[in-house]
Amino acid sequence: MDIGRYLKERREIVEKALDRLLPPGDSPPEKLHEAMRYSVFAGGKRLRPILCMAALEALGKDPPPFMPAACALELVHTYSLIHDDLPAMDDDDLRRGKPTNHKVFGEAVAILAGDALLTLAFELIANMDTAPPPIRLEIVRRLAQCGGTGGLVGGQMLDLAAEGKEVSEEMLECIHAQKTAALIEAAVVCGGILGGATEDQLGAFSIYGHSMGMAFQITDDILDAAGDEVKIGKRTRKDQESKKATYPGRYGIDGARHIAEEYVQKALGALESFDDKADPLREIARMIALREQ
Amino acid sequence: MDIGRYLKERREIVEKALDRLLPPGDSPPEKLHEAMRYSVFAGGKRLRPILCMAALEALGKDPPPFMPAACALELVHTYSLIHDDLPAMDDDDLRRGKPTNHKVFGEAVAILAGDALLTLAFELIANMDTAPPPIRLEIVRRLAQCGGTGGLVGGQMLDLAAEGKEVSEEMLECIHAQKTAALIEAAVVCGGILGGATEDQLGAFSIYGHSMGMAFQITDDILDAAGDEVKIGKRTRKDQESKKATYPGRYGIDGARHIAEEYVQKALGALESFDDKADPLREIARMIALREQ
Repeated sequence: MDIGRYLKERREIVEKALDRLLPPGDSPPEKLHEAMRYSVFAGGKRLRPILCMAALEALGKDPPPFMPAACALELVHTYSLIHDDLPAMDDDDLRRGKPTNHKVFGEAVAILAGDALLTLAFELIANMDTAPPPIRLEIVRRLAQCGGTGGLVGGQMLDLAAEGKEVSEEMLECIHAQKTAALIEAAVVCGGILGGATEDQLGAFSIYGHSMGMAFQITDDILDAAGDEVKIGKRTRKDQESKKATYPGRYGIDGARHIAEEYVQKALGALESFDDKADPLREIARMIALREQ
Repeated sequence: MDIGRYLKERREIVEKALDRLLPPGDSPPEKLHEAMRYSVFAGGKRLRPILCMAALEALGKDPPPFMPAACALELVHTYSLIHDDLPAMDDDDLRRGKPTNHKVFGEAVAILAGDALLTLAFELIANMDTAPPPIRLEIVRRLAQCGGTGGLVGGQMLDLAAEGKEVSEEMLECIHAQKTAALIEAAVVCGGILGGATEDQLGAFSIYGHSMGMAFQITDDILDAAGDEVKIGKRTRKDQESKKATYPGRYGIDGARHIAEEYVQKALGALESFDDKADPLREIARMIALREQ
């Protein structure tokens, strides 16, 4: 399959759905809606919504009816980026090649835009009448779990606390698992829940998603340590400067690359019982460790 | 009825439920959990959970099975206070007589604690198996709506934008409706939904809640303009200094008091078709305009 074309097509579907589901930039409060849209449309890969769609496809289901849930994953991701970039947190000026939200709209609006995106994510799921209530509720639960103190927020907290310190192997894995892998896992698992997956299939999606998430974050750190600032669109070597806990920092670039490849193999292994409808999931996993941005 | 005793008893039930539902302060990430608990247990009136419980009681229902929803309302309220107090927002050092969250834990942790409380609110509702999934989903929807850009977040945005400007009567009402009344209305309406209220009853709760919320915010502003710093436990006359849009600022203290009393009368009128099981709701409304803190 042509994974490049697949990703491009799916990305376009996601962009259109996001545009439809976000409040218009010219509706009040305009500045807040503009700020939300600014970060959502700052050019992400849409990995999480696409993984949700690919999981649905792996089960032979058509993704479009479930775009609100797929987009909710992207909104939660975007909210966490906006808050993580704030001066009080990672203090980043650049994200995806553009000034970060607070650089454009100021800190107050950036905090509120993040809050509003997180809140909207849950509203979109609650309103998604293409899925029965118990299924929607299960998506709410999963999203809340992977967003909370055992997921995104907890991971960012551990990450901040680990700065400048020597962290254990377990702590490094825990930070990555919570900060990145939890939401990526939730994306795949939510696709599975919406597609009516069996318990076994959900288990496979869970292993695939977790492994993918770990591989993705490790590759991200490798790109930060070794990558080209222009291609990546954010300041590189920043982790090293701020002494963030990373895999390349602990295992070197080659060592980190090897670990990322092991995670990709684990992700692929989890999909063994699926037929060729799971090929997009497989190809995305293979791409992760090879990406250059 | 002895409304003082009623409120004290309900408050104790809420405190216990909050303690049970929040992550323990000694579980990791400890500092984050401590920060969440610090603001949740900083001595609030628990108006929103108590209103939710009182609405259930007005329908002859026992509140305890639905405490996760009642507490979720308090968590959303607390999250919004933590974020509103941040230096980039209202820059408040004192809340309920204690240093604000960011003063104790730093800005990064305060932002994350707010994020985590908002997220946990949705998780609590999703997990509340005492109510059927469609009901829980309706609560998620209501909470997200009143928390988002048409509610709490949008109201704070309008409030920040209005600072130092002459605002219209409509804008002033809109700010109060979104910043305060929306969540108080949601508290009463959610109690109604959980208690199996009819459409008419929900409509009555909605008017009661909105009116109560407006009266509450106006009284809050009157206390800020005229009140005693020690009793209120936060710096008073701050609205005036920062030129916030308020009812006393626009109508004077007596004018504002009169408007608050009208809202209380409207709230009471909405409950006409209810029997004496709605007396707690009635007494709470009467208290609002008389409170001194």
